[in-house]
Amino acid sequence: MPIYQAPARDARFIINEVLRVGELGDLPGFEGASADIVDAIIEEAGKFASEVLAPLNATGDKEGCTRHQDGSVSTPAGFREAHGQFREAGWGTLSAPEEFGGQGLPHVIGFAAEEFMSSANMAFAMYPGLTNGAVNALLVKGSPEQQAAYLPRMVANEWLGTMNLTEPQCGTDLGLIRTRAEPQLDGSYAITGTKIFISAGEHDLTDNIIHLVLAKTPDAPEGTKGISLLVVPKFLLDADGNPGERNSVSCGAIEHKMGIHANATCVMNYDGAKGWLVGEENKGLAAMFIMMNAARLGVGIQGVAQAEAAYQNGVSYALERRQGRALTGPADLGEKADTLMVHPDVRRMLMDARAFIEGMRALSLWAGLLVDLVHKAASEEERVAADDMLGLLTPVIKGYGTDLGYKVATDMQQIWGGHGYIAENGMEQFVRDARIAMIYEGANGVQAMDLVGRKLAMHGGRAVQAFFAEVGKECAAATADERLVDLAGRVEKTNGELQAATLWLMNNGLANPENAGAGAYDYMHLTGIVALGLMWLRMARASLAALDGGAEDKAFYEAKLITARYFGERYTPEAGALRRRMETGAEAVMALPVEAFARG
Amino acid sequence: MPIYQAPARDARFIINEVLRVGELGDLPGFEGASADIVDAIIEEAGKFASEVLAPLNATGDKEGCTRHQDGSVSTPAGFREAHGQFREAGWGTLSAPEEFGGQGLPHVIGFAAEEFMSSANMAFAMYPGLTNGAVNALLVKGSPEQQAAYLPRMVANEWLGTMNLTEPQCGTDLGLIRTRAEPQLDGSYAITGTKIFISAGEHDLTDNIIHLVLAKTPDAPEGTKGISLLVVPKFLLDADGNPGERNSVSCGAIEHKMGIHANATCVMNYDGAKGWLVGEENKGLAAMFIMMNAARLGVGIQGVAQAEAAYQNGVSYALERRQGRALTGPADLGEKADTLMVHPDVRRMLMDARAFIEGMRALSLWAGLLVDLVHKAASEEERVAADDMLGLLTPVIKGYGTDLGYKVATDMQQIWGGHGYIAENGMEQFVRDARIAMIYEGANGVQAMDLVGRKLAMHGGRAVQAFFAEVGKECAAATADERLVDLAGRVEKTNGELQAATLWLMNNGLANPENAGAGAYDYMHLTGIVALGLMWLRMARASLAALDGGAEDKAFYEAKLITARYFGERYTPEAGALRRRMETGAEAVMALPVEAFARG
Repeated sequence: MPIYQAPARDARFIINEVLRVGELGDLPGFEGASADIVDAIIEEAGKFASEVLAPLNATGDKEGCTRHQDGSVSTPAGFREAHGQFREAGWGTLSAPEEFGGQGLPHVIGFAAEEFMSSANMAFAMYPGLTNGAVNALLVKGSPEQQAAYLPRMVANEWLGTMNLTEPQCGTDLGLIRTRAEPQLDGSYAITGTKIFISAGEHDLTDNIIHLVLAKTPDAPEGTKGISLLVVPKFLLDADGNPGERNSVSCGAIEHKMGIHANATCVMNYDGAKGWLVGEENKGLAAMFIMMNAARLGVGIQGVAQAEAAYQNGVSYALERRQGRALTGPADLGEKADTLMVHPDVRRMLMDARAFIEGMRALSLWAGLLVDLVHKAASEEERVAADDMLGLLTPVIKGYGTDLGYKVATDMQQIWGGHGYIAENGMEQFVRDARIAMIYEGANGVQAMDLVGRKLAMHGGRAVQAFFAEVGKECAAATADERLVDLAGRVEKTNGELQAATLWLMNNGLANPENAGAGAYDYMHLTGIVALGLMWLRMARASLAALDGGAEDKAFYEAKLITARYFGERYTPEAGALRRRMETGAEAVMALPVEAFARG
Repeated sequence: MPIYQAPARDARFIINEVLRVGELGDLPGFEGASADIVDAIIEEAGKFASEVLAPLNATGDKEGCTRHQDGSVSTPAGFREAHGQFREAGWGTLSAPEEFGGQGLPHVIGFAAEEFMSSANMAFAMYPGLTNGAVNALLVKGSPEQQAAYLPRMVANEWLGTMNLTEPQCGTDLGLIRTRAEPQLDGSYAITGTKIFISAGEHDLTDNIIHLVLAKTPDAPEGTKGISLLVVPKFLLDADGNPGERNSVSCGAIEHKMGIHANATCVMNYDGAKGWLVGEENKGLAAMFIMMNAARLGVGIQGVAQAEAAYQNGVSYALERRQGRALTGPADLGEKADTLMVHPDVRRMLMDARAFIEGMRALSLWAGLLVDLVHKAASEEERVAADDMLGLLTPVIKGYGTDLGYKVATDMQQIWGGHGYIAENGMEQFVRDARIAMIYEGANGVQAMDLVGRKLAMHGGRAVQAFFAEVGKECAAATADERLVDLAGRVEKTNGELQAATLWLMNNGLANPENAGAGAYDYMHLTGIVALGLMWLRMARASLAALDGGAEDKAFYEAKLITARYFGERYTPEAGALRRRMETGAEAVMALPVEAFARG
């Protein structure tokens, strides 16, 4: 069975020493986030993930979810009990507001816990994960009555939430939805339509499920300007606020998928179901994006999480399996062969994994901090800056993070050779599970367009300019230490490539938007490399500070510096290629006539 | 259900107009390979693949193989009948020698047919595909008696063959095998041991199965110098050469795998089974490499094949699915949304697929021709040159071809969005099936080491020098046509990167072999890009010649030229990055202490 041990040490390092969350004690919620408390929570979350959730990962994949004739859905054996423990331990409440029963801790801590849960059991972690998105939407757009009715129970994970967006004829293009919401005399709406791919749409984990549903009211404008968001509980609440009458929403089928078998992906049928508007009529898209942005960060974290879980098992196999001899001569003369660790190509895959995982972990935890700072930073200027940066980084974390997560999971499976292809060894599950993260909550091509088409242009490019400046500042600071001159020079060079690519996009995307479309994906990856470079510089500086300060855990910091160097040497060369490819423009991409694509 | 239409037009173009097989009519076997005959065979093979094999691909994946209590194995419904049709149509006999009942046609034709079969149903195509490898080994190393006893039936696919190499403790490192072959008084050997991951080790397709087995005789030298190859039939042959007494070899279990479910991957138990030496004692590794090299080319073809099948279904979805609007304004005003074809990022994935598939198809068919020329070319000089080139290209076709095949399959799944993750749509099967090709017959890291550690150095670098010269010659020739100047310049530049990388390897790999090991993978990909560039130049020149000659099928040749341009603009920029990454050497790759890898 695959192993999993939460990388708590690494998360603590990032939170305490790189992001220095302990120094933000003046901000609301951060007063309780001293290094001691952070460490304790991180350790406990890691323990829960590895002891309770990880043992259910392979069995959950094998058993999958079952839909019964009455439309009810069972999760795999052990999931209900594990969710009970999750609920009792309050893992869903970490970063939720105290007024609704949350612990009000910074999101940066919640994000770390989320990564561990997702590494241990991605299909399980999705149940509470999606609830977070629904909670966010209700927090911002819900009426006080809705908040009071739903949030305390959802925060406590007594009830779970869902996001109902996709329909058979539309996923990305939500302007095409057909689900109708007819106003009723009592102020509610009758919702009718079919939603597909609804994760956790039906299950046996909780007594109620709170669906947030996109629908169109009669006479709504065409397209995305005519979409409303409604809250539709599986069981209507009775006078005491408890689950009462069954609402007419039901699971019509569950999908058979490549992975995440233990998460029920449902076709949801709304047959005049009773729901209530969340926020204003026709303004549902904005409310949906609140859920979506949170969900996208969560999905990016899934990318790191699957990579980390696969990495640990790649390492354990490479340490044990003996095959061939070191190129420099036998390493273990007493054995008939050396371990896989002697082979440079195996090391390459493991180091690729570390450079991605640790860099992306830092980036996503920084994003968690930015989520807090958007609301809690001391000045308006800081709040705006945090919002800009978060908006810019979200598609990169989601798109680059999940592409690389899948690549790393595939590489770690590769280390196992033929044994990696065998189901019972668990490596192929990491790949199958990681694959969905590139698709849902906006396919990665959509993320690239969000970055290039929306985020770059906002406020006259303010966010990306701030990002360039931040990277430049970090490079300059690092250059002051001769031990970091090489890495800083390499990252600075990628920053230069990104600036040139941005300028190219501005000039050529205006002339022909297809130039932006054809280059968006490469631009997203280029941004990912620069962002990881920024994080590696920060981590390298923090590590040197620790070593210079006589830290005890020398091996940890030295490993960071070696991996930072590896990142610089092996990840940054791609930046120039991405830019040059992008700068060839859209012509060759779009030149082939549509009718020439099919074989015949 | 996924569609599949064999790309017969493209294969015919490569064979007749690029490789000009028709002009080789003086060589043995080629006299029957006129364009007319080639076209007829290609069309028929395509029809068989799409009509007989493709319909069994999804059902075979779902049902898988079943091992019964008596150790017998059933293939999925329809496989036995399909194999009967395959046998009757003589698809296994195409390139086999006439003296054993084959048609003696060039391998280049057999390779094209093999691609179609593998696209339509990879798990099915493996049964006869592995037999080819066993046939090759017996052709070269078998005694006349062995050849007479086994080859006619194997060529006719009355009996199928297997390769028994891997054991629980060794895959890559065959020096570690433990299976024993004890000489008996009658000249046979008694074979005892356990083999794992034996594709097609047991099944119900044929009356007999001929296993080729690596084992060690008593007192054999340690390591790979003490390995012998033996032929071990499932049923011993009676006096008339028909299957008689059951041999003591049996299937102990079948594996549950990520993909290729319809191919039985067996644990084979040899319990004093009767076998006979093939070739000399302790010289089994050389014999094994005859099988292996054929198998590696076959696996490379699987990479193209899965990419092609996935591509066709990516296209069909992109043509149908309407989502969003063109960036340049609505394309289909009468519809609520445009098709996916308007989106540059979707086009990017489709064009990436075409540029890889068509380039790699040409490369693998060229390899098929080289297989013929190794034995049949008019002069010794040409035969040696063909052998050099084939040896150099084999690890590239296998390693680069399957890496990109998997990437393309993943991209095509991505075009389907969430629907690509749903099992019944078939896109995820292409990904799962394509995945194994990166692993078996030598994991791709092993291919990279074969290229860098063996093939580069052979005969003082003669093969790679010939390759550089061939690319240089092609670039020079193309430059004479102004329409190809841009592409030729780009390919020439990649050739320069490869030459510089080769020089770097020679200088730095000698100083420290780990530099070669750490750079091998990037070097393999770099070689793949240059090799595809060579093929694109050849295809572009052939297309221009056809157009200039007033060819009727203009659209086909124009599509080639557009795809050639796309390859030049979008594939070649990576070459420099690969070289620069490689040239950072092994230090950062190997620097982290072994004990620092595990999390804790």
